[in-house]
Order: sequence, then C-alpha cells, then structure tokens
Amino acid sequence: MSDVRAEYEELKARGLKLDLTRGKPASAQLDLSTPMLSLPGTSYRSADGTDTRNYGGLNGLAELRALFSGFLQVPASQLIVGGNSSLALMHDAIVHCLLGVPLGAARRWADAERVAFLAPVPGYDRHFALCERFGIELIPVAMTPAGPDMDEVERLVAADPAIKGIWCVPKYSNPDGTTYSAETVARLATMTTAAPDFRIFWDNAYAIHHLFDEEAELADLLALATEAGNANRVFVFGSTSKVTLAGSGVSFFGGSPETIAWFLGYMGKGTIGADKVNQLRHVEFLRDEDGVRAHMRAHADLIRPKFETVDRILSKELSGLATWSSPLGGYFISLSVPEGTAKEVVRRAAEAGIALTPAGATHPYGKDPSDSVIRIAPTFPDTAELEAAISGLAVCVRLGAAERA
Amino acid sequence: MSDVRAEYEELKARGLKLDLTRGKPASAQLDLSTPMLSLPGTSYRSADGTDTRNYGGLNGLAELRALFSGFLQVPASQLIVGGNSSLALMHDAIVHCLLGVPLGAARRWADAERVAFLAPVPGYDRHFALCERFGIELIPVAMTPAGPDMDEVERLVAADPAIKGIWCVPKYSNPDGTTYSAETVARLATMTTAAPDFRIFWDNAYAIHHLFDEEAELADLLALATEAGNANRVFVFGSTSKVTLAGSGVSFFGGSPETIAWFLGYMGKGTIGADKVNQLRHVEFLRDEDGVRAHMRAHADLIRPKFETVDRILSKELSGLATWSSPLGGYFISLSVPEGTAKEVVRRAAEAGIALTPAGATHPYGKDPSDSVIRIAPTFPDTAELEAAISGLAVCVRLGAAERA
Repeated sequence: MSDVRAEYEELKARGLKLDLTRGKPASAQLDLSTPMLSLPGTSYRSADGTDTRNYGGLNGLAELRALFSGFLQVPASQLIVGGNSSLALMHDAIVHCLLGVPLGAARRWADAERVAFLAPVPGYDRHFALCERFGIELIPVAMTPAGPDMDEVERLVAADPAIKGIWCVPKYSNPDGTTYSAETVARLATMTTAAPDFRIFWDNAYAIHHLFDEEAELADLLALATEAGNANRVFVFGSTSKVTLAGSGVSFFGGSPETIAWFLGYMGKGTIGADKVNQLRHVEFLRDEDGVRAHMRAHADLIRPKFETVDRILSKELSGLATWSSPLGGYFISLSVPEGTAKEVVRRAAEAGIALTPAGATHPYGKDPSDSVIRIAPTFPDTAELEAAISGLAVCVRLGAAERA
Repeated sequence: MSDVRAEYEELKARGLKLDLTRGKPASAQLDLSTPMLSLPGTSYRSADGTDTRNYGGLNGLAELRALFSGFLQVPASQLIVGGNSSLALMHDAIVHCLLGVPLGAARRWADAERVAFLAPVPGYDRHFALCERFGIELIPVAMTPAGPDMDEVERLVAADPAIKGIWCVPKYSNPDGTTYSAETVARLATMTTAAPDFRIFWDNAYAIHHLFDEEAELADLLALATEAGNANRVFVFGSTSKVTLAGSGVSFFGGSPETIAWFLGYMGKGTIGADKVNQLRHVEFLRDEDGVRAHMRAHADLIRPKFETVDRILSKELSGLATWSSPLGGYFISLSVPEGTAKEVVRRAAEAGIALTPAGATHPYGKDPSDSVIRIAPTFPDTAELEAAISGLAVCVRLGAAERA
C-alpha cells in the first residue's frame, strides 16, 4: 500500500499532460488522406454528369453510395449521403420521429407520454446524450460477448410499447470492441416488439476499422429484418470520419426503400442536400473497395501498435486485478477495474495529468452502477505519451484496489 | 386575341426546354471559385494552430467568423459556422425551439397548443415549407417597398402570444428584391410582442449580393434589438452558397451571446462541429473583406446582364399589362401579372417548355389569393435561353390577360 502510494506521488511529480479521452485519429492517420486536401482539383462532375458545385442531389452521389454499399450492408439505392457527421443524421432521425410520424405509427413520438430507448452498456456517451437532450428515457441492458443480452432485450421490447428504440454499435463496439454474433443480429431482426414503430439505431461506425488480419464478420441486419417483414425497423448509420478526415468526412443513412423515402421527405424540407464536392473528393481519393481496404490497412498499421502497447502494459501491471478488452477493431479498449473504484481512478489520473473519459460516461445519465468501467482511447497520443499514460493509469488502478482491499 | 393565341401556338411549336424555377448560380459563376477545388492544398492548420482535419471546434474557425462578421452585422464571437446549408441551421433553430426551451420561454414550443409565424408575402417557399412541416401556422403579412407592413406586424405580435416568429429576407428579398428600410428594422427591433420568446428569423441570404455599384444599406437589427433590450429576439442566418459553391459553401448563425450559448448547447448534442477544412478553404480563397467584395463584383458582372435582359424584354412586351421588380441585388425578379391569371400563365409556359416556380409558391400553403405573383430566377440559364424563356413567358402573360379582358 505505501509502495503504490509512493509510486502515485512520483507519478504526480512528473507533471504529465496526456489525453486519452476521445476516439480521435492521430495526425499520422490524417496524413494518410493529405491528397484529399487538393482534390477534386479541376474536375467537378459526378459519374452521371451532375455539376457537384451546384445545388441539388438530396441523396448524394450514386458512385459514393455504391462504394460504401457493401461495407455498410445496404443497397446503394437505399443509402443517403449526409454531411460530415453521422451523429447529426442520428439526431435528425430522432427529430423526424419526434416531430413527424414514424412509419407504422399512429402519431408523433413528441405526442407520446413516454418514449424510451434501450441502451446496451457499456455504450457510447453521445448516443445517450442525444436521448437525454430530447427527454427520451434510457433503459440499460447489459452487453455480453455476443452483443446485448438478447433475453432481456426481447423481454423488454415485447412488454413495453413505450420502448421505441435501441442503440447498437454492432461491430467493434464502443467501448468494448464486441461484434454482435449472428444469432444476436437475427434475434434483433425478428423479435416481437410491442411498439409498431420500434427502431434499431444501427450505428455501424467501425464497419471497416479492423486492427488485424483477422476481421470480425457482422450479419446483415437489414436483409434479415426485411426477410422477417421488419424492414422499417432498421436505421443504419455510417461515416468516413475515421476513414478519411475526422472533421471533413461524409456520413451515411440506410434503411428500407420506404424508410429512405420517409427520411428524404423530411430531409428535403431542411436542406438542399449535403456537400457533393466533398463526396466527389472521397470517390476520387478512395476510388474503389480495394482502395478503401488498402487505406484502412494503412490506418491499422499506425494504430495496432498502440492497442498492443496498452495490452502489454495492462498485462504487466494489472493482471489478476483488472480485466480489459482486446478488440479486433474499432477505437477503444474497455478497462474493468475493481467495483467501486473507477471514479476515484479517473479522478486520481486527472490529478496526475492523465485525462480520461469520465467514469460512468459509458452508461446512461453517467451512472455506472458498479463504478468499474473506464474507456481508453489509445489512437490520438504518440507511443511514448501512450506508454506514460497507461503506466500512470495502472498506478492509479493499483492504488484504488489497494485502498479498497 | 387571336394574334396572341397564334403567337402562343408558335411558341409551343418551338419545343423549348428552359428552366427558370430556382435561384441557382450559372456554371460561369461557379467557375469563379474553381481554385477552391484544389484548396487548402497542403496546409490544414487554422490561424490558432488547430488541425482542421480532426474533430472539434463547434463554433467554427475564428478567422472565417471574423471575415463575415461585418457583412452579416454580427460580432465574430457571436457567429457560429455551420455546414453547407443555412436552411439546415433554420431547421435546427426551429427544432431547438420546439424540443428545447427557448430563452425567455417557460416551455417548449412543442408543448404549446398553437405556434404561428408571420410570413411576409411574397416570400420564400422553403421558409414556408419548414413551418408547414412542423405544423407551425403561417399568417401572411403584405410586403411594402420598405419591407413587411409594420403596422400589421406590430398589431399582430402585440395581440397574439402564439405568434412566435417572423420570416425576413431583409436585403434584396426573395422574390421582390426589397431591402427593409431603417424604420422597418428599428420597429422590428423594438416592437412589443405578446410572446416573450418571439424570434425574428433574419435570413440575410443576399447580404453582399449586389448587382450594381449602388448598394442597398441595411440597418443593424442585432445592434438595435440589443440596445432595446431585445437581443435574444434575433436569429441571424447567412451563407456562402451564392458566394462560392452552391452545394459546398458554409453557413452562419448569429445572435446575442446568450442565444449563441443556447444554440451551441443543443448543437453540441447533435454534431462534433461543421467541416473545418471547408472553412479553411473558404478563408484561403476569399482571404479578406476586399477579396469577398471583388469576388462578388465578378458575380455581379456575370448576372447583371441577365437581370437587364429580363427587364428589357418585360418592358418591351408587358408595359401597362404587368409590373415587375428591378432589384439592386439578390437572385430574383417578382412579376405581377393581372389578378387571377398567374396559375394559368405558369401552366401555359410549362406546356411551352418553360419551367417556372409554381404560381402561389411565394405564399404560405402555395396560395396566392390574388393569383398574380410569378417568381423569375434569371441567373442559371445562359443569355440566349433567358431571352427565349422571358419572351415566351411574355406571350403567356399577354394571352392570359387577353382571355381575362
């Protein structure tokens, strides 16, 4: 105990200033897309001859939709290209359900007494914040190694018509890196819901963000739901924020043909369509599916060593004391420290100059009942910084555990 | 009568295919911004050193806000840069009022039994469509040469707390090219409203879109409202859609410091900020206020002849029969044909291959009670096409008038 306390005092004395809070690409990753900064150059016509510089084209360039159709498991005709933020598309989808009438519903969500979403935990804080902002209740459901606890999900959605949605990051999930099993996806597609307007918010943010040669396979939710007569249940989201440039990518919304018509009907009131020059820029830079794959391998080569560094240090420092995920892709590692110590660990790390996502952020309302989950975002710092930060974090975890023992 | 009928039959026989529907820039105008297609080149840092390629920066680059601050009459610190569509910012502002609590209000607009906006007519169809989509009632108010009929506006907003807003295109208005007088702006800033959360949607879309050396002056609404203690009444909108590239510009939202904090609070839930590389691209291309002015003069040189062509043909063909605006700026000419004939004129023009904005589109619910206003958008066609279209339109107007006489 006095040893680890001394270690912590030493750590503080080092005066670190490190940030592991958000899943931001490192500069070296952004450099991979440097050619985009001078594209499209002099060309400005899309494949069908459209002048991308002018107004129009609500659903986005056909060639860009075709390029991501396979990766996102949505037919190109059922994809819409949005602006630089898939979160904005999720925001808009909720707004359209609140202030418009969702397919299959008799009235707007805004007119319902209560609207609730299932929140698999640990999950993504920005999903939860969107619901909190709109007064949508969040009901936590535990994540398992195969995805959300489907027995619990099925029980809840069958019983309660106020439950209108579920948040899913189905591949390399934020934060624990889980990919939903084929059975989980099939059950989501076919389950009976009390709400006729139940929606799966399928945020496939890390669809192509593999770290290793071994790639996780995700079942095709939209195809399965369509087969089961539940096509309108599925809202698919994706983006190139972590493919090309984080602030200047493109986003995607996908669903059934009926859903796309519904979405475009509302979208067309609020915009003349997203930035088509940026869409053309993406097509010219990424070219084809092989181009995308090669580009994502270059990303993996830059960030895989960082994930390995975290794993190596945690294995050395915290074996038997904590557990953590070893994801095959995505942007995060989820660290489980002894119950009741996560908040204190994060507070102590901050005091030692290591900024972490607040403990609890992975849970609705910022409340992790076990106070044990810490999200680690290893991509942004360089390796030396990352080593210092994770070693420091390990000291804080050990001190927390020692005090609790 | 038979003469003009014969003329119309000849017109139809020509098999034209011309489009005067929307205020789109012509290719030659977009060419002015060709250098942007290869900007920012290799640079990607904003003036304060921010890596524009990464996440972050909700309110936009300071140098871009400074560049448009004077033109939009909003202090740079009270401007937010949005995506490629100011219409989307208007959509979002309404959503924030419907689903959040507006400053000064006790509850959300969504919880009010009735929400109404004043719609100066003729006005912009997309403004009206936004309200219709959200079930916001539109109350028409007549435009005068000095802006909306302020006696009527003051009477209505003082009497009815359900009236929460007014749509204004205060400079070179859509469609009649009017610039609000200093008195109109002062009255809007200081008038008594029954609703504590009344908002002026100040869509300053044509702030710098002069056609001639003589430029209209617009009084500073935000400054006047602030002086009168009504700072939160003002929502300012602007964009570069008709400055740089129509589909790939940037948009602006401005207001009081309190309004900006309120807006960012909601905006931050739904996005990580707009495309900063595109913001940098704009700064590099436009450089400074003089750069913007020179660029806008180049636009004017391209489109002024088109406005003059319309004026010349209408003067020759329709003097004494119709009236039309001769705007100093903006994108439209408003044509007033004999009462009760506009719909028929537009129908006949379409039959002759000349597409016009539907008669009535300039009024809420598409209903122009006098059936006399036709909006002409002269910028997109080339001069030969424009001459053919306006000459053809004149034939349709004369035929309509002859039938009615």
